[in-house]
Amino acid sequence: MKFARFKVKADVYQGVLTEDILKVIKGDLFGNWAYTGETFPVSEVTLLAPLEPNQIIGIGANYVTQKAELPSELPEIPVFFFKPTSSVIGPEEDIVIPAGIDQVKFESELAIVIGKEAKNVPESEVLDYVFGYTVGNDVTAPQFFHQDGHWTIGKSFNTFTPLGPVIETELDPFQVSVEAKLNDVEKQNSETALMIIPIRKMLSYLTEVMTLKPGDVILSGSPVGAELVGAGEVIACTINEIGTLRNTFVAAKIASEIR
Amino acid sequence: MKFARFKVKADVYQGVLTEDILKVIKGDLFGNWAYTGETFPVSEVTLLAPLEPNQIIGIGANYVTQKAELPSELPEIPVFFFKPTSSVIGPEEDIVIPAGIDQVKFESELAIVIGKEAKNVPESEVLDYVFGYTVGNDVTAPQFFHQDGHWTIGKSFNTFTPLGPVIETELDPFQVSVEAKLNDVEKQNSETALMIIPIRKMLSYLTEVMTLKPGDVILSGSPVGAELVGAGEVIACTINEIGTLRNTFVAAKIASEIR
Repeated sequence: MKFARFKVKADVYQGVLTEDILKVIKGDLFGNWAYTGETFPVSEVTLLAPLEPNQIIGIGANYVTQKAELPSELPEIPVFFFKPTSSVIGPEEDIVIPAGIDQVKFESELAIVIGKEAKNVPESEVLDYVFGYTVGNDVTAPQFFHQDGHWTIGKSFNTFTPLGPVIETELDPFQVSVEAKLNDVEKQNSETALMIIPIRKMLSYLTEVMTLKPGDVILSGSPVGAELVGAGEVIACTINEIGTLRNTFVAAKIASEIR
Repeated sequence: MKFARFKVKADVYQGVLTEDILKVIKGDLFGNWAYTGETFPVSEVTLLAPLEPNQIIGIGANYVTQKAELPSELPEIPVFFFKPTSSVIGPEEDIVIPAGIDQVKFESELAIVIGKEAKNVPESEVLDYVFGYTVGNDVTAPQFFHQDGHWTIGKSFNTFTPLGPVIETELDPFQVSVEAKLNDVEKQNSETALMIIPIRKMLSYLTEVMTLKPGDVILSGSPVGAELVGAGEVIACTINEIGTLRNTFVAAKIASEIR
């Protein structure tokens, strides 16, 4: 099932996408919801990020180029980071390059949406707590990384977390590839089997530390091939079974304009 | 005005603390709220963390020992980090030391509560976006810091962010001291004038990066004197004008018990 959030004029809706029709739903995506009977052709709406995340957790440098490179021993402490929910945008929205720099990095990723509260869940059960999957772009300005390794600021600017176009609840996350095309030229294309810390281990580890909640989004790492890009360039992040998340990079306006 | 959240039997309330009486309020703390007429003696309630934060942002290593040590030039990129909202507990709740380690660090801090959406706000105006202040304890397990400088896991365990006892809206944050007593022995006691990145600059910088929202909590750094402590020890974090936030460290139970 493909869940979407979308806007028609000033109104925001949740809906289920079937072929080219959005069937409006009401209620809690992770609990009880129902069809309202209203429908919209997808061509007549503006798709938004498919959810307003509770929080966003990313994992660093999580792909190898080929399976032979997968390490025999996993790192004891994976590199996790948070991104603020204020950084979320939807499909076709502009990614704003912060003032003072000319380029930022795109990172196409499989984004995991948690559906149920999860604490101390073993790897064998942890996928039961996943609601579905969307495409994420973990936009990053490495110029704002702290010299001592803190990534927070470089990943936290507004517009730095495009999500969408839909949440697919029936995906097999082990049978998909994560792709990115920059200005229609392929830059990333890796199957998720190239993840260093695989999905079940990643989620189970997180639940040993913290209680994951419905609406938490985990960005599961980006394949080899991410690049620094500038204003005017167009990035399309794709997982075929979910859809394509396309955004254009633009230069920051002066502070008084974006306030 | 001192705002509190508290529990009476199974019910959770918001209220205003006057002397020893909690006057119940209803509504949005950051918007429209009203007294319900109900009151409770504070001695008959269980105080909770005074808010459920929207998100929690901390700043690293932000105090010097004495004013002469304040640097003439501020760091270009401050060390900020996020803590998950799942790590929040209230006064008198136990801080759980994660399985596999014996000690964690306490860090008494002035916690700033944002009341209005803030983007690109200059230092001169940024305090207008602050709702009030509470006491925070940025509990940290440096054993879980990544060797490349990522602090996320070491600061993210459940129970690692005690907040309370109240939000004081009338505080002058430049006229207070941040204290901690471990088992009744003073360990931290610094005026906020010893902050390396002062409050206005810290908040204004954050609003240049991201939109701060009502309910965001900024932990403004911990004075010199934080220590590693073990199970059974009692930490009392105090800002006199706000109150004392006391918690006891306990060892982790086995996974099946805390699930």
